[in-house]
Amino acid sequence: MSTAEETARGDDQPWAEVGPEAARRLLVAAVEAFAERGYHATTTRDIAGRAGMSPAALYIHYKTKEELLHRISRIGHEKALEILETAADGDGTPSERLAAAVRSFVRWHAGHHMTARVVQYELDALGDEHRTEIVGLRRRSDDTVRRIIDDGVRTGEFDVPYVPGTALAVLSLCIDVARWFNVEGRSTPDEVGVFYADLVLRMVTAPDRARK
Amino acid sequence: MSTAEETARGDDQPWAEVGPEAARRLLVAAVEAFAERGYHATTTRDIAGRAGMSPAALYIHYKTKEELLHRISRIGHEKALEILETAADGDGTPSERLAAAVRSFVRWHAGHHMTARVVQYELDALGDEHRTEIVGLRRRSDDTVRRIIDDGVRTGEFDVPYVPGTALAVLSLCIDVARWFNVEGRSTPDEVGVFYADLVLRMVTAPDRARK
Repeated sequence: MSTAEETARGDDQPWAEVGPEAARRLLVAAVEAFAERGYHATTTRDIAGRAGMSPAALYIHYKTKEELLHRISRIGHEKALEILETAADGDGTPSERLAAAVRSFVRWHAGHHMTARVVQYELDALGDEHRTEIVGLRRRSDDTVRRIIDDGVRTGEFDVPYVPGTALAVLSLCIDVARWFNVEGRSTPDEVGVFYADLVLRMVTAPDRARK
Repeated sequence: MSTAEETARGDDQPWAEVGPEAARRLLVAAVEAFAERGYHATTTRDIAGRAGMSPAALYIHYKTKEELLHRISRIGHEKALEILETAADGDGTPSERLAAAVRSFVRWHAGHHMTARVVQYELDALGDEHRTEIVGLRRRSDDTVRRIIDDGVRTGEFDVPYVPGTALAVLSLCIDVARWFNVEGRSTPDEVGVFYADLVLRMVTAPDRARK
């Protein structure tokens, strides 16, 4: 699936906020180029060419290649955080909220796996200031998952030896979906999300405790 | 940690089999360059330079950049498979063997996270024939984990809704350690391995079943 197809599907649409249309087209072209060849092997000329524009037209919207990566990374991370916060702030028990968080986080990483790979694997290419900003968004995502798990520990639904490590593992399991997910495979993003929500609920419920 | 440091640690030493010494030095330089800049942004000149050698000296050992990536990928995948097969063929209950597999697989991905990233993220850059070979090794790794889970389902220790999906999730959780593991963080590769083995055993034990 190309990024254009990802975009066309319109679910959890990540680039809708980007305007004007030329700026959005360049961003989508940059995601495709970075995902295929890596950030360092991609030139602004490559990106402009993919978008059917001249390098000069690119510079009207983005001063540097790093600015494009930063924009992609920030939108991707903000979307991920929003997904997690929506689930964390929802109604329901901690189990229901954790399952909702995993379902929608996985769905996003499967449905937008090309974008997610750029967002997750090219962090080191960001400039210092931009990386610091993105690390801040990542911390908030971590905190959001910890908060749900903490709630479940308080109600007695969950029993985990170490909340921060468990929160990291939950996010890590979901993020890695972007690496292996294949649109030609047999599972849809929704199906993987449902399956993973079950696996994660098992992770936070100690078998020993469940036996009591 | 640099690849040289990874190598110097000597645990699960992945490059010991590569000789002569110049060929090994080039391989280690290639891992570092691919991990830092990506495969497509790296030239054979970069690799030779890192190894303190001339491009001509590189061509004595490797005809193309792709040959270097293939060599790295094959050694990495063979090592991963060996780790999993050793655990699968070991003594002990399915729970013990699954825990051993996760502990050593995680330890490898944390301890050699730079190598693991190249091995896991640059698959698309391999030529068709080489990719087919590597995909074959990956299938065998999948099969090895499925075998342990199947054994546990048979003995009644495990209860999973879908063995292939669970095996994929177990491997995925371990592989993603290479993305986030930080040698300056608070956990050692061993500690992460022990923690993850516990999480995985929870995943394969259904809370409902454990309650009976």
